Amino acid sequence: MSEVLRPAGRYESVVIHQGIAYVSGQLPRTGNQLEFVGRIGRELTLEEGCIAARLCAARALTVLEQALGGRMRIIRLLRVTGHVSGLEGFTQQSIVLDAASAYFEQELGPQGAHARTACGVYNLPQGAPVCIEVQAAVRD
Amino acid sequence: MSEVLRPAGRYESVVIHQGIAYVSGQLPRTGNQLEFVGRIGRELTLEEGCIAARLCAARALTVLEQALGGRMRIIRLLRVTGHVSGLEGFTQQSIVLDAASAYFEQELGPQGAHARTACGVYNLPQGAPVCIEVQAAVRD
Amino acid sequence: MSEVLRPAGRYESVVIHQGIAYVSGQLPRTGNQLEFVGRIGRELTLEEGCIAARLCAARALTVLEQALGGRMRIIRLLRVTGHVSGLEGFTQQSIVLDAASAYFEQELGPQGAHARTACGVYNLPQGAPVCIEVQAAVRD
Repeated sequence: MSEVLRPAGRYESVVIHQGIAYVSGQLPRTGNQLEFVGRIGRELTLEEGCIAARLCAARALTVLEQALGGRMRIIRLLRVTGHVSGLEGFTQQSIVLDAASAYFEQELGPQGAHARTACGVYNLPQGAPVCIEVQAAVRD
Repeated sequence: MSEVLRPAGRYESVVIHQGIAYVSGQLPRTGNQLEFVGRIGRELTLEEGCIAARLCAARALTVLEQALGGRMRIIRLLRVTGHVSGLEGFTQQSIVLDAASAYFEQELGPQGAHARTACGVYNLPQGAPVCIEVQAAVRD
Repeated sequence: MSEVLRPAGRYESVVIHQGIAYVSGQLPRTGNQLEFVGRIGRELTLEEGCIAARLCAARALTVLEQALGGRMRIIRLLRVTGHVSGLEGFTQQSIVLDAASAYFEQELGPQGAHARTACGVYNLPQGAPVCIEVQAAVRD
């Protein structure tokens, strides 16, 4: 993607300070288009949730690269928080977020490994099924 | 506010370590009084949610200033997490949190810019509609 | 516990970078066994929620110690995020998380003090009632 990706509100997509990049929560958007809307278990299948999570991860990596001017300044990922919108009683957040974690691993190798927290939220902005926030160590 | 604001449990309002301040999640309280209770879309309007978010942001900045002994030690905000309690299907978390982000911008200028993650939670402590957590870079 | 505790997905239990340890969200598990399942107010009492929170805290400290090779490298806790699964209208997240905060205080003394954010989530992985994420300052 050569287009610069913009945040959906009055915040920055990425803030970098003293070797740490804080990436805002990313929805499964391509450009400004949300690709998935709904809850897993109702409008969306588990598999679609996984594809959405992968898309969030891809977008997080893209905005980080745009902020850094390229991937070579990424030292490693540190922390990923994943918010998943599923039906009441949905407990497979880890499966959904593993799709994001696998994407980071695939793209960054061992540098893509990270600590992770998953939770099932009641609602997400714009009705998205997944939102992924990332913190990474970067070269200044 | 000259009164020192206290946390609502067994934790610190602010922890500072090596140039980073971690501000605990702030509810829309004035002193020890919660100013808004309920869900957006049920007990509260979107506009009230925005006022509540602004109040959370004001409180986060106040406790940070109290911990630092003044605003001049704030280098910049880094990361804001916003939890919003709305009805099932409420998807305007970004509008609510923009009120908090605008407050930080108004008070701190470019130093108030931040990465942000928004989510719609099922419940918040004391039935609050919004909770805002902040991480900031500060002078030691 | 001498057994090494493993994460429940494609992520690391702990990532350490430049003096900060990022501990993944911990469920109330002993070994690989989830000790509590359900919502507070439905399957579980408030007291059980507190015991679960304490178990999450104990596990967070255990995985951190395992990553560090002992407790003596912990400088202090910085930030705790607690996700609590309760019935609609449950607002005592602070009481539940105080059990975790008290555990950290008991085990680490003043070094266990931390900033904290609490929220009531809709669902948690595996149906757990509590999940606790920790960030700590550590000696390299």
